[in-house]
Amino acid sequence: MNPPLLSPSRRLRRTPFSDGVEAQGVKAYTVYNHMLLPTVFESVENDYRHLKDHVQVWDVSCERQVEVKGPDALRLIQLLTPRDLSKISANRCMYIPVTDQNGGMLNDPVLIQAAPDTYWISIADSDLLMWVNGVAASNGFDVTVREPDVSPLGVQGPKSDDLMSRVFGDSVRDLRFFGCGRFDFQGHAMLVARSGYSKQGGFEIYVEDGAIGMSLWDALFAAGQDLNVRAGGPNLIERIESGLLSYGNDMTRDNSPLECGLGHFVSDVQLSHCFGGRAMAEERATGSAQMIRPIAIHGDPVSRCDRIWPVYAQGMQVGQITSATWSPDFQTNVAIGMIDRAHWDAGTALEVQAADQIRPCTVQDKFWG
Amino acid sequence: MNPPLLSPSRRLRRTPFSDGVEAQGVKAYTVYNHMLLPTVFESVENDYRHLKDHVQVWDVSCERQVEVKGPDALRLIQLLTPRDLSKISANRCMYIPVTDQNGGMLNDPVLIQAAPDTYWISIADSDLLMWVNGVAASNGFDVTVREPDVSPLGVQGPKSDDLMSRVFGDSVRDLRFFGCGRFDFQGHAMLVARSGYSKQGGFEIYVEDGAIGMSLWDALFAAGQDLNVRAGGPNLIERIESGLLSYGNDMTRDNSPLECGLGHFVSDVQLSHCFGGRAMAEERATGSAQMIRPIAIHGDPVSRCDRIWPVYAQGMQVGQITSATWSPDFQTNVAIGMIDRAHWDAGTALEVQAADQIRPCTVQDKFWG
Repeated sequence: MNPPLLSPSRRLRRTPFSDGVEAQGVKAYTVYNHMLLPTVFESVENDYRHLKDHVQVWDVSCERQVEVKGPDALRLIQLLTPRDLSKISANRCMYIPVTDQNGGMLNDPVLIQAAPDTYWISIADSDLLMWVNGVAASNGFDVTVREPDVSPLGVQGPKSDDLMSRVFGDSVRDLRFFGCGRFDFQGHAMLVARSGYSKQGGFEIYVEDGAIGMSLWDALFAAGQDLNVRAGGPNLIERIESGLLSYGNDMTRDNSPLECGLGHFVSDVQLSHCFGGRAMAEERATGSAQMIRPIAIHGDPVSRCDRIWPVYAQGMQVGQITSATWSPDFQTNVAIGMIDRAHWDAGTALEVQAADQIRPCTVQDKFWG
Repeated sequence: MNPPLLSPSRRLRRTPFSDGVEAQGVKAYTVYNHMLLPTVFESVENDYRHLKDHVQVWDVSCERQVEVKGPDALRLIQLLTPRDLSKISANRCMYIPVTDQNGGMLNDPVLIQAAPDTYWISIADSDLLMWVNGVAASNGFDVTVREPDVSPLGVQGPKSDDLMSRVFGDSVRDLRFFGCGRFDFQGHAMLVARSGYSKQGGFEIYVEDGAIGMSLWDALFAAGQDLNVRAGGPNLIERIESGLLSYGNDMTRDNSPLECGLGHFVSDVQLSHCFGGRAMAEERATGSAQMIRPIAIHGDPVSRCDRIWPVYAQGMQVGQITSATWSPDFQTNVAIGMIDRAHWDAGTALEVQAADQIRPCTVQDKFWG
């Protein structure tokens, strides 16, 4: 069977950069927050090699913003996450697990203070706006909750600083990891953060006003010709090597932040009043029953992991793998899985039902990237 | 450029019927509620012809259920919709616009009473569970809100009654439009409704427990061989001819139910206490500023409508088209658009920017199908 096509419709929203993405010959998309997210240009493997060696421009407009604006904005957001937000500032992004009343993950966004009393929650793939607004509307918070015209553009790869400094000036080099600030592009003070969904270094530019998107896109490509700049996107191989979790793939509403290895974002003090705090406090006290772990799957390259692959110990299911692919650099199949406590120690030998093959696999000490 | 492929991942969830869909040679998917929805088997045109002449089995598992269960379930749901739910019963589905505090559409689902104090909200493409649960968690309603293992399977087309009666018995023929009941399949009392996303007649079977999905799929194909049964899916041409609105295409959170022509589902009595009631009452009093209308676009077949097409009167924008395609049966381009009050009368001649062409178009009296 040929790989399936994606049927276009307005519902699968185009982005301010879609014309540029198409001109660069996008071969495949995924759909993320009801929007097109380019996934492949040359091939997953070639895009991976290029990302690790050069610099890429990523259309990650699908990281939509839930804007919470008003005098009660921070108070509302603090209710939504177990992370302590007291150190939020205009110069710093924060990764915040968002949990429901049972401590289940609703999203794992990045929080940014865009202006006084104005926050952007830069979301993974779920309609978090509905939860935020449901809580806001039901509790009489003095806020407005909306999706603004803001589309992040990623610049990722080892030459990101060189490219960005040519377009935004040398001061952009001074941003620390998850630091952010305003930088001028053609008279627009754009919010730029040192962040992004790879571990190759890079930035995300929060483009306010889609109409100027292609000017920035074109400027980055013009400035980066000698840096071998190309269009790219979140890369399956690189993100698994690097242990970057994907909401909807590696974790869902059925998982707590602690199970996802996000315990350092869970503040004991916050657990007394955030949604799901009691459940998370109990889990912290007793220890998690399962945890996300890096797993090496042995043998030849596995086929595409498009569904849960059960993991077994002596024939009993003890976990599942949700992301997996062959890594050219590490010469093994790299994978992300959720494994029961009795089997999650590094070095534990297990088996995985990978598509139609049973494969030996081993829990790793850490991710590869 | 070749049409883009869809990158597979666990996040784009497979369904209990995906193996069957692939065996039938699915050519294209869309993504709907984070799940695969087959859109094309032979071609959009051939699938359309077949749907109107024969019978198709549709994998519409992506119509996920938001299950609201508990003593406060109906009281909570009544807060979420302007429709009067006092006549809900186990024998009747209800189409319910769901609105936020400003009267904006969050979803346009079908509500079913699956058991006493257990309701399924069968959703269009948005994570309505987040809104329902946000309201529930914030107001102390005694309910649980979850997505159960329920996957609708559609049987659509003029021979639907013949096929369904062979599998579920002749009594299924007695269901009236939007009537529902329990019918036996291999010892499972399955919830069946006379409903579906076409106007060719048909049913939706709410398959509880994905593990039995393929047995039902196979039974339908075995029973329907001489009826020329095939796999199909919501068909772009047929649904526009028939005026079946698509959430995310033809309406979003920016639109009220009244603008969407859903005023007959808005009860004046409910407006005093449902979310967005005040805004809808004001709109009803003053009249809507714009409304969804059927529109014929003249000339040759238009290209695929994958973004908003602005509609003009004497060079001023007076609306937008969000769904459009060539209709073989009506020999015109059929379209759905949102048009300002001054221009929405049937017969009004307008112009539309359809991709790179300006085309004359005319507001129609009614949809075609």
